[in-house]
Amino acid sequence: MDRLIAAINATQNPSVVGLDPTEALVPPQVVASFADEVRDSVETPEEAPAAQLAVAYFEFNRAVIDAVADIVPAVKPQIAMYEALGPAGIDVYTMTCEYARQQGLYVLADVKRGDIGSTAAAYAHMLSGVAAGDGSYDPWNIDAVTVNPYLGTDGITPFVDAAKSSDKDVFVLVRTSNPSSSELQMLDLADGKKVYEHVADLVEGWGADSIGSHGYSRVGAVVGATHPEEGAALRARMPHTFFLVPGYGAQGGTAADVRGMFDRDGSGAIVNSSRGIIGAWKKSGEYRESMSADEALELVASTAREAAIDMRDNLRMVL
Amino acid sequence: MDRLIAAINATQNPSVVGLDPTEALVPPQVVASFADEVRDSVETPEEAPAAQLAVAYFEFNRAVIDAVADIVPAVKPQIAMYEALGPAGIDVYTMTCEYARQQGLYVLADVKRGDIGSTAAAYAHMLSGVAAGDGSYDPWNIDAVTVNPYLGTDGITPFVDAAKSSDKDVFVLVRTSNPSSSELQMLDLADGKKVYEHVADLVEGWGADSIGSHGYSRVGAVVGATHPEEGAALRARMPHTFFLVPGYGAQGGTAADVRGMFDRDGSGAIVNSSRGIIGAWKKSGEYRESMSADEALELVASTAREAAIDMRDNLRMVL
Repeated sequence: MDRLIAAINATQNPSVVGLDPTEALVPPQVVASFADEVRDSVETPEEAPAAQLAVAYFEFNRAVIDAVADIVPAVKPQIAMYEALGPAGIDVYTMTCEYARQQGLYVLADVKRGDIGSTAAAYAHMLSGVAAGDGSYDPWNIDAVTVNPYLGTDGITPFVDAAKSSDKDVFVLVRTSNPSSSELQMLDLADGKKVYEHVADLVEGWGADSIGSHGYSRVGAVVGATHPEEGAALRARMPHTFFLVPGYGAQGGTAADVRGMFDRDGSGAIVNSSRGIIGAWKKSGEYRESMSADEALELVASTAREAAIDMRDNLRMVL
Repeated sequence: MDRLIAAINATQNPSVVGLDPTEALVPPQVVASFADEVRDSVETPEEAPAAQLAVAYFEFNRAVIDAVADIVPAVKPQIAMYEALGPAGIDVYTMTCEYARQQGLYVLADVKRGDIGSTAAAYAHMLSGVAAGDGSYDPWNIDAVTVNPYLGTDGITPFVDAAKSSDKDVFVLVRTSNPSSSELQMLDLADGKKVYEHVADLVEGWGADSIGSHGYSRVGAVVGATHPEEGAALRARMPHTFFLVPGYGAQGGTAADVRGMFDRDGSGAIVNSSRGIIGAWKKSGEYRESMSADEALELVASTAREAAIDMRDNLRMVL
């Protein structure tokens, strides 16, 4: 986790911008502007709308990345939004990750993978690169992945091993931000713990032999901003585990809610906002349908930058 | 689940072939045979080995599909094996799914996705097709997905809704086949249930309003062949839930082990074997390094067919 912590320290900003585009979040003139380009490149006409949206996602992401690269340490592209478009979306996912890295950002791939050991080992090539050939090809260009703990240690170990061998990180779901998360995560166990506390203890163990120079291991935890009390308790329970905190902003979490997820030095966590930043243009009151695609992207960029600065300043205020 | 059950009935074979290729499972001369073709198609030389392996995976899968399409109802391509190769692998994943469907097979996409509601809704386009345009573009070409229950109902509902609207199915992880699965799934809850039993009850509920003509809902459960006693208990506990049973063969499960996962009519479950079928050529004693690529693929095909027939007959014997 040392590289992420260094990036946070350099920007004095423990926040990460979620790059989770949807059709509703990209100004329509930006999508429309790629109609001609796409028509000539697809194999069948029915692919065109998805391909067009995929290209628009990339331009949208690039505008956001350029606007925030000097003030945030990291971005978190959610792969679901791209998989929804099929292979064209995956291409744009990897292009987005590559571009973000070129701008110096740490790329946290929100993929929430998890499977039995042999299969997890295949997924872990997202961190370690393709094994075929001389091993130098890394199509994913990411610095960390999120993973799901439901399968236990042998489903996690391959990711942790890949993280260690390639100076990367893993974040395990512990207490997610969504309303239904309590159905499983908050169940009381016979030994007095809750399920998520049991998972928390496993996570702290999975990271025990990869603790870096800042005291945090390569195995982080996902802890939702919507659970401030549990988050604070987990902070104490998991002293070597860095937190990825989703659920800030659009999902309801505030700077005060996440204060307890940080350690006494103001480190130990990074807070994600997606819609609150990349969708800020929609709430700005400045958008006009008559704007050109370039003007709309400029608005996306300037409002995203403002929202990212606001979030940074709000977090600085409570830390 | 009606389409899957009809396909099982038509073949009198409740088994599914896992299409989980790895570099070690594809005869090397098959991979080598694509060297020239790939060299001309990639943008940079470093991509070539991954692209070459991806093309080889497709030819390998096609050989297996052609060899088993008349005797099995379904295939289960594990997406991790393809993601390990980057975007070229994803292209081949969708090509494999499309080809399998063209041969009349039900395609169960083993993707184990899961996230908060808005994100799960994006993933669910794997079932419902791309929303952009006129909605007719379905890049994934699949009939079902596997999903992870750790996030609770709001992470599952979008998949179930998409399944309902597109005549498809969802399989939720309940009791997985891997050794570490007990760390979380077998924990005792304060109310006397185990965690996996609680998940089982949720799954039965998630399917309650999509029960088809055979008495099974669109929401299935993943129950590992390596847990025969728990599987039999789950069969009684989940009367409307169809089971996907991995862990047969290479992972240690036998036909006797899975007997209890079926209902009294011999329905209610489909058993997966991956390496035992697609890797049968390696154990045949008939492989020679001197074989041509075509000869090696013929061996892959004939041994896969034999192994699939053996598995079918072993299952028929206990049912």
